Parts: sequence; structure tokens; C-alpha cells
Amino acid sequence: MATPKPHIAITYCRLCNWMLRAAWMGQELLSTFAGEAGSLTLIPDDTGGVFEVRVDGDLVWSRGEQGRFPEITELKQLVRDRIAPAHDLGHADRGHGDSGDG
Amino acid sequence: MATPKPHIAITYCRLCNWMLRAAWMGQELLSTFAGEAGSLTLIPDDTGGVFEVRVDGDLVWSRGEQGRFPEITELKQLVRDRIAPAHDLGHADRGHGDSGDG
Repeated sequence: MATPKPHIAITYCRLCNWMLRAAWMGQELLSTFAGEAGSLTLIPDDTGGVFEVRVDGDLVWSRGEQGRFPEITELKQLVRDRIAPAHDLGHADRGHGDSGDG
Repeated sequence: MATPKPHIAITYCRLCNWMLRAAWMGQELLSTFAGEAGSLTLIPDDTGGVFEVRVDGDLVWSRGEQGRFPEITELKQLVRDRIAPAHDLGHADRGHGDSGDG
């Protein structure tokens, strides 16, 4: 276990009141990747409309680029691919990612 | 606004299932210190019973040292004293910190 565990960061638009959303997604990630994630950082930002997720500094989601928020299932898949490729996300991997489960 | 905003970190015992508690307290701090806090990091840890809060790396609460969790009001006061001494916490500063408000 000498390898540092990955750090996940969510930057959210504070003025848009997206703290609760960012915190919810963060807790989902901490729950799903318990034992795999090293930390989860929430970063309030005054940039209008910003919602970005990074793993060890690498951008895995940008609302500005994608034009929308991630579904929680697809966010988990993106994070999983980075930090725990062998981690089976269950029905989230076998469905269409639209159920909110996983 | 060139001064970096303070970073708050909560290290919690993952095996004790304290993620929700840590996330709740973290959100309380982000809400109360909106515009003053730079980030909030949740750090799962496998050390039994650990619950520590740091501001810019300085320990402001340790369950191991104090023998208990902080009340949310006293935690806000401790963090306030570090990051925004002039920030009036309202009735939390005038009551006995046992109301859960503030």
C-alpha cells in the first residue's frame, strides 16, 4: 500500500449554489471507492457555471466542455477508469447509466 | 484577494463509517465560511477512531486528544478563529454552543 491513493477534486460554482450537488457526488465517490480513493476535495469557485472533476489533477469532467452535469453513474465510471480499472460497478456497468444506481 | 484562501481538511475513520458525519461538518463549514474557505478535503483513514480537523495543516480538533467529537458550533468557532477572526457567527457566539445552530 505504498502507492499514494488518488485524490479526487470537485470544483463548483459557489454562486450557483452547487455545493450540495458537489458534496453529494463527492460522497457517492467516497462511498463507491472506499479504500481506493485517498481524498475528496470540494473547491468553491466564483467562476460562473464551473463544475469540474479532477483525479490527481487530471480533468475527467468539465461542465463547460460537456455542456451538462455528469450522471452519477458515468462519473463513477470515469473515475473508476482512472483509479480502479478492475472495480466492477455492478448494474451501473451493465445498464445504460440512467438509473441513478451504481 | 491575492492571498490564498485557507484549506480545511477532515480526516475520518472510514471503518467507523464516519464519512457522513465528516461530510456534514464539512458542508457546514463550506456554508458558514462561503467566500472565506478555499477548499474542504475529506480524507478517509483506516486508523480506528480517528477524527481530525485541520486548517492549512494545523490541527484544530482531534477526537483522540479531546476524547469526543466537536459540537458543530465549537468547530465553527475554532475554524473561524483561524480563518476569519472578524466573522460573527451570530447566536452561536452568544449562546452556549449547544443549540446546533450557527
